[in-house]
Amino acid sequence: MPEPAPAPNGGTQFLGEIREQPAALRRLLEHEAEFARVAAAARRGRSLVRFVGHGSSDNAATYGVYAFGLVAGWTALRDSITLTVHYGATVDVSGSIVLGLSQSGQTPDVVAYLERAREGGAFTVAITNDPDSEMARAAEAVLPLCAGDERAVAATKTYVNQLAALALLAGHIGGQGERVSDGIRDAADRLEEALPDLETEAQALAVPFAYVGRMFVIGRGPEFATAREIALKLLETCRTAAAPLTATDLAHGPVAVLDPLFPVWAIASRDVSLSAVQDAATRVNQFGSTVVASGTAALEIAGADYYLPVPEPKLSLLSPLLSVVPGQLFAAALARAKGFDPDAPRGLTKITFAR
Amino acid sequence: MPEPAPAPNGGTQFLGEIREQPAALRRLLEHEAEFARVAAAARRGRSLVRFVGHGSSDNAATYGVYAFGLVAGWTALRDSITLTVHYGATVDVSGSIVLGLSQSGQTPDVVAYLERAREGGAFTVAITNDPDSEMARAAEAVLPLCAGDERAVAATKTYVNQLAALALLAGHIGGQGERVSDGIRDAADRLEEALPDLETEAQALAVPFAYVGRMFVIGRGPEFATAREIALKLLETCRTAAAPLTATDLAHGPVAVLDPLFPVWAIASRDVSLSAVQDAATRVNQFGSTVVASGTAALEIAGADYYLPVPEPKLSLLSPLLSVVPGQLFAAALARAKGFDPDAPRGLTKITFAR
Repeated sequence: MPEPAPAPNGGTQFLGEIREQPAALRRLLEHEAEFARVAAAARRGRSLVRFVGHGSSDNAATYGVYAFGLVAGWTALRDSITLTVHYGATVDVSGSIVLGLSQSGQTPDVVAYLERAREGGAFTVAITNDPDSEMARAAEAVLPLCAGDERAVAATKTYVNQLAALALLAGHIGGQGERVSDGIRDAADRLEEALPDLETEAQALAVPFAYVGRMFVIGRGPEFATAREIALKLLETCRTAAAPLTATDLAHGPVAVLDPLFPVWAIASRDVSLSAVQDAATRVNQFGSTVVASGTAALEIAGADYYLPVPEPKLSLLSPLLSVVPGQLFAAALARAKGFDPDAPRGLTKITFAR
Repeated sequence: MPEPAPAPNGGTQFLGEIREQPAALRRLLEHEAEFARVAAAARRGRSLVRFVGHGSSDNAATYGVYAFGLVAGWTALRDSITLTVHYGATVDVSGSIVLGLSQSGQTPDVVAYLERAREGGAFTVAITNDPDSEMARAAEAVLPLCAGDERAVAATKTYVNQLAALALLAGHIGGQGERVSDGIRDAADRLEEALPDLETEAQALAVPFAYVGRMFVIGRGPEFATAREIALKLLETCRTAAAPLTATDLAHGPVAVLDPLFPVWAIASRDVSLSAVQDAATRVNQFGSTVVASGTAALEIAGADYYLPVPEPKLSLLSPLLSVVPGQLFAAALARAKGFDPDAPRGLTKITFAR
C-alpha cells in the first residue's frame, strides 16, 4: 500500500474541529427539550440501557455506563452487536432502552441491531450527527448531536457531543437535567478558555514523542472512556500502538511490558478514583517509563515527566469532556511531527462499512 | 527496577500447566451436579447475569457474555466494579445473578462487589479455584474450578476451566447441560491429542517473533475472549505490546497503524464470524503485516504467513477452549527465546491486590 503524501494543509480540519468543540457543546444544549422528552418516554418502567456503536461511539458508551449508573441509577451495558446481529441470539430486550451511537447514522450493524431491538419491544433511540440517516429512521426517537459537519476522519467534536448527549439524557432520566445542562455549559466555557494554552503545551510535547512506537493510556471510572478515545486517536492519526487500560488492568499483567521506551499517559481526575491512578503512576515509575499526567488532577501525580492539566468543571462527572482534549491536540501535533495527515489517515474512511 | 535473571528451569510451571489443561477440564466435569444445582437456583425469575473479575478472569467473562446469550438467551454483562465499589452507584441488582470470577478468590474489589450485590438481593455465585477463599465465603453459592494448584503467575488452566465453567452453567440454565458437558469432554480429548504437535509448531514460530515489539490479536464473537487472553499472555510473559481487537474494531481506526513490522494474530473459527475475520485478514495483508492464522478455521485465512490450526470440537461454542492454547504455547516459547521467565514475570505476583 503506497504511503499518502501529507497534504499541504494536513490536519487543518482535525485541528479546526477540535477548536470548535465548545461551540458544538452549546449547540447541543439548544436541543435540551428533546432530551427531556425522550427521557420522559424512556424511563417508564425501565432501568436498563444498552449502548451500541463502534470506535469513538463505543468509547462514548464506556462513559455512558458511568453517566447512567451515577446519575440515573440504571444498569447500562455496551451490548454485543455481534451476538444478536451475527450469531442470532434471542435475548429479551423488551424492558430496555437501546441507544444507537453513530456519527454518520450509517454503520450497518448498528442499524441492524436497532431494527431487531425495536421489533423485540425495546425503546430505541438514535443519537447521531445526521438526524435524516438510516439509523435515525430505524429508531423510535432521534437525538441530534448538532456537532456540525465533521470532515476529518478521526472523530473529535462528535465524540465530545456524544458524551454530553449521554450525560444530558441520563440527567433528565435521573431528575437532574438542569444540573447536567448547567454543567455542560460551564464545561464548554472552561474548555474555550483553556484551549489556546493546551494547544501550545500539546505541541511542545509532540517533539519528544516522535519516535515512540508503543504507549499505554490509563484512566479510571468515567475517564476510562477518555483513555480509550485518546489511544484510538493516537492509533489512527499517529500510527502509535497506544492501548487503553484501567489503572487496575495495568496491575493485572500489562505492567510487565513497561520499560523506559514505553511511555504511559495517565488521566487523573479529582474524584474517588484519583488514588488508584496515583498508585498506578507510582508502579509505572518503577519501570522507568516516561509518564504524562493529564486530567483535572494531573498535578497530583507525583514524579510525572510532563503535565497537561485541564480545568475542573463544576460537575465532576463532566471532566471527560475536558480531559480528552489534550489527547486530541497531542495527536494532531504528533501526526504533523511525523509527517502524517490526521485529516485522512491511510486505510480509513469517514464511514466504516466493515462488518 | 533490576531485570530478573531467568530461572534455570524458567517456564517449567507455565508449560506444565498448559499441558495439564485436558486433565483439568475433566476434573471440572466431576462436579457437574453442583453446576446443575446452582443453575436451578439461579434461573428462578431471572434473565440477567453480571460478571466481575480482572485480567484473565475478565477475559473469561467476555466469553461468558456469548455463552449465556447463545445457550441461555440471557443478557450478560461484564459489570463495572469501580462504578459500585468505588463510586458508590446505587443500581438495583435484585433481579440479577452475579458471578464473581477469581482464581485465588482473594481479589479485594471483586469480594467487595459480591458483598454489596448480595446485600442488594442478587443471587451471588463465586467461581474460584479456592472454594475456601474469602470470595467463596462472601457468595451465596460456590462453583469450584478444580484446575489444581496453579503456580505460574500467568493463568492458563484456570482460564480454560473458567470458560468451561461458564459454558456449563449457561448450559444448565438453558436446559442444555448434558450437551455442554459432552462437548467439554470431547474438547478435552481433542486438546490432549493435539497438544504435542501444537507445542512443536508454536516453538518454531517463536524464533521469527523474538524482535517483535507490537502485535494485534483479532477475534470475533466468543473468540474475542481468546484474542484478549492471548494478548494478555504476550504482554505479561513476553513484554510484547499485544492489543486485542475484534475484527470490526480493527477497521474502525487501528488498522491505520499497521506495517510490515506489526504482525497480526487472527483467530478464525468455523462459525458465522469467519467471513468477518477473513475480511480483516485481507485488510491486514494490504498493509504488508505478517499474519498468523489460528483457530479451528485457520486454514481458511488466505495468504497468512503462518498457520496454527486447532481441532474443531463437536460444539462450536467451545472452540475457545482449544483456540487459546496455541497462544499460550507461543507465549511460553517466545518468553524462553527472549530469555524471560514466564513463571514469574517481573512486576507481577500471582494474586493482585491493586485497586
